[in-house]
Amino acid sequence: MPRPPVWQNGEMSKGRLEGFSDGVIAIIITIMVLELKAPHSETPEALAPLVPAFLSYVLSFLYVGIYWNNHHHMLQTTNRVTGPMLWANLHLLFWLSLFPFATAWMGENHFAPAPSAFYGVILLMAAAAYWTLQQTIIAVQGPDSFLKKALGSDWKGRLSPLTYAIAIPAAFWSAWISQGLYVFVALLWLVPDRRIERALAGKAG
Amino acid sequence: MPRPPVWQNGEMSKGRLEGFSDGVIAIIITIMVLELKAPHSETPEALAPLVPAFLSYVLSFLYVGIYWNNHHHMLQTTNRVTGPMLWANLHLLFWLSLFPFATAWMGENHFAPAPSAFYGVILLMAAAAYWTLQQTIIAVQGPDSFLKKALGSDWKGRLSPLTYAIAIPAAFWSAWISQGLYVFVALLWLVPDRRIERALAGKAG
Amino acid sequence: MPRPPVWQNGEMSKGRLEGFSDGVIAIIITIMVLELKAPHSETPEALAPLVPAFLSYVLSFLYVGIYWNNHHHMLQTTNRVTGPMLWANLHLLFWLSLFPFATAWMGENHFAPAPSAFYGVILLMAAAAYWTLQQTIIAVQGPDSFLKKALGSDWKGRLSPLTYAIAIPAAFWSAWISQGLYVFVALLWLVPDRRIERALAGKAG
Amino acid sequence: MPRPPVWQNGEMSKGRLEGFSDGVIAIIITIMVLELKAPHSETPEALAPLVPAFLSYVLSFLYVGIYWNNHHHMLQTTNRVTGPMLWANLHLLFWLSLFPFATAWMGENHFAPAPSAFYGVILLMAAAAYWTLQQTIIAVQGPDSFLKKALGSDWKGRLSPLTYAIAIPAAFWSAWISQGLYVFVALLWLVPDRRIERALAGKAG
Repeated sequence: MPRPPVWQNGEMSKGRLEGFSDGVIAIIITIMVLELKAPHSETPEALAPLVPAFLSYVLSFLYVGIYWNNHHHMLQTTNRVTGPMLWANLHLLFWLSLFPFATAWMGENHFAPAPSAFYGVILLMAAAAYWTLQQTIIAVQGPDSFLKKALGSDWKGRLSPLTYAIAIPAAFWSAWISQGLYVFVALLWLVPDRRIERALAGKAG
Repeated sequence: MPRPPVWQNGEMSKGRLEGFSDGVIAIIITIMVLELKAPHSETPEALAPLVPAFLSYVLSFLYVGIYWNNHHHMLQTTNRVTGPMLWANLHLLFWLSLFPFATAWMGENHFAPAPSAFYGVILLMAAAAYWTLQQTIIAVQGPDSFLKKALGSDWKGRLSPLTYAIAIPAAFWSAWISQGLYVFVALLWLVPDRRIERALAGKAG
Repeated sequence: MPRPPVWQNGEMSKGRLEGFSDGVIAIIITIMVLELKAPHSETPEALAPLVPAFLSYVLSFLYVGIYWNNHHHMLQTTNRVTGPMLWANLHLLFWLSLFPFATAWMGENHFAPAPSAFYGVILLMAAAAYWTLQQTIIAVQGPDSFLKKALGSDWKGRLSPLTYAIAIPAAFWSAWISQGLYVFVALLWLVPDRRIERALAGKAG
Repeated sequence: MPRPPVWQNGEMSKGRLEGFSDGVIAIIITIMVLELKAPHSETPEALAPLVPAFLSYVLSFLYVGIYWNNHHHMLQTTNRVTGPMLWANLHLLFWLSLFPFATAWMGENHFAPAPSAFYGVILLMAAAAYWTLQQTIIAVQGPDSFLKKALGSDWKGRLSPLTYAIAIPAAFWSAWISQGLYVFVALLWLVPDRRIERALAGKAG
């Protein structure tokens, strides 16, 4: 009793891409907290040495949250999922999966130069992987790419990697400048960015 | 061959918000159990030192379960997902992600004053984040907010943070009073709360 | 611009219940493998001491797989999700979440009496929680409960807890009898059980 | 008020099979990174000893990514989920769940012979389990199996286990030959394989 497969313009396919990505991102964001080891002492002072690890956790939580948020919006502009998109997405998840490591190294060494620079390298690679995924989707959408129009000049997407590229060498001069730049980029993305929402609303209206 | 994106009143969007939240909450609830380290000895007595860690695990499991349950009902009242809602939701997940740490510190130190107070701080911050998410949804729903009506006086939502605020300083006087208050609030929410279910049923009827 | 909530006979609700349960069960099944710590030595002999931990992992993987499988079939008989069902489900997940701990303790102590008995206690509690969830669904479905008919005499569901109840005290006499009984029950469930599938097929036909 | 269950040709069922598999695979791919322990030293040189662990992580990430990708395509050819398929799928997930262990042992021992051979054994068992799942789906689809036609000669599926079977004993002669063979097979699958996509497109066209 053979039956034809359910195949509805790749929609289901997209559901799995999103579901898998959500799973990986959810685990990444949650295992970072495992680095905050409960102190053996019961005094409030026992929390003090954990402050750097906590701050680096907050920063990474913000970054992973921003990636999830942007990933969510980007995929809403497409309903086709192709082989190259699956791999570009896995490539992005690979670099995001190194966030817990980079966060732990930086937090444990109190924002020392090398770990701060390394954190920037991971941020830069993740940004490059995100850009690649974006370009892959735009290429699939063709000359009238909806995503391309929604992105506009994409100045945030251009400024972020540039800032990381400055922050990486700067860490060896002053790690605090690097940290300031990382926080600056995070805040840049936290400010609501309604490009895709607005474009989609315009389309629906 | 460009095709228009699938965009159905934000429904898909909500699916990802729920799926991601479920993923994070599922991981939080499960990694807490990692704190229960299998004893090296094979005697039944080897389990005795784990009792405080087990009890704090049960309490946190209840709390995370309550949050999942309420989150589930709250999101059923809306089908629109906006940028601020995504961030208010991530903010809630951030505080929930600190439950494993707070639980481990409290369990390992046998409900000592400082860890007990700290646990209350995390409970309070999570409650505040939940309230913020609730207000964000109500604001999106506008003056006739369905969620607002369903919540009614929201006395549980008001009483809980107040109780935490009392339990935090009380921990330094007697940690058992704090624990009692935490258990009291958990039981308060365990008692079935049919407000949203009833309101939705009334709507459907 | 208030819009009515999407409310379709609780279907969406069920999606989240399933998704959350899948997430928790997926994490439980996967973190058990973390107990298999990679040996520091590179010789093949270094794997030998891990054999008991590996065997207890296989047994627990089977049990969690059986629970996922049965949970999957049971929920297919219903499309209503009520508050008590959410809590009965969380209660089941709570006992399943203790599998990694029970597995690690038993594996590390080479199936010693107390850990073997403790493992049986967790199996028994999980079976009781599963039974409670089953009864909750049957109660919601009312006198003509489809699930109740599909289960028939439910002899496996009755025999399993009975077997655990024998295996628990037996562990202190001979842990190998208990292990044999645990394996026996697992195999019992592995043999395809088509009751619900057949009942659903009959209904559709 | 009994209501008939929602039963739509097993589609929902497939959703849970995919969702659960995605969850397990997402966790497997992410916990492998936990083996990359943040060094205590803050110098860039502190990263050097981690290079073998990092390389084995990259290799395993690729393999798990390939499995996810192929699993995704394979399940798109079917919309029926049977009991044997659920178990064949769990069997595949079991072998995939041993990747973190095999990866950690190989990485920690700098690709020594025994761990390299063991890694090949896990690859071989996972390939066999994947093949079993494939055959189970083909059997369900009957004589006109869509999946069978889409796979064609399945030369990659035949060559891969053969290569692992050579690589396993070769590890004791030269572990680098084995590693080269593992990388070779991974690259083989990375090259886009459009069989199923093309077959589905042809069907839709």
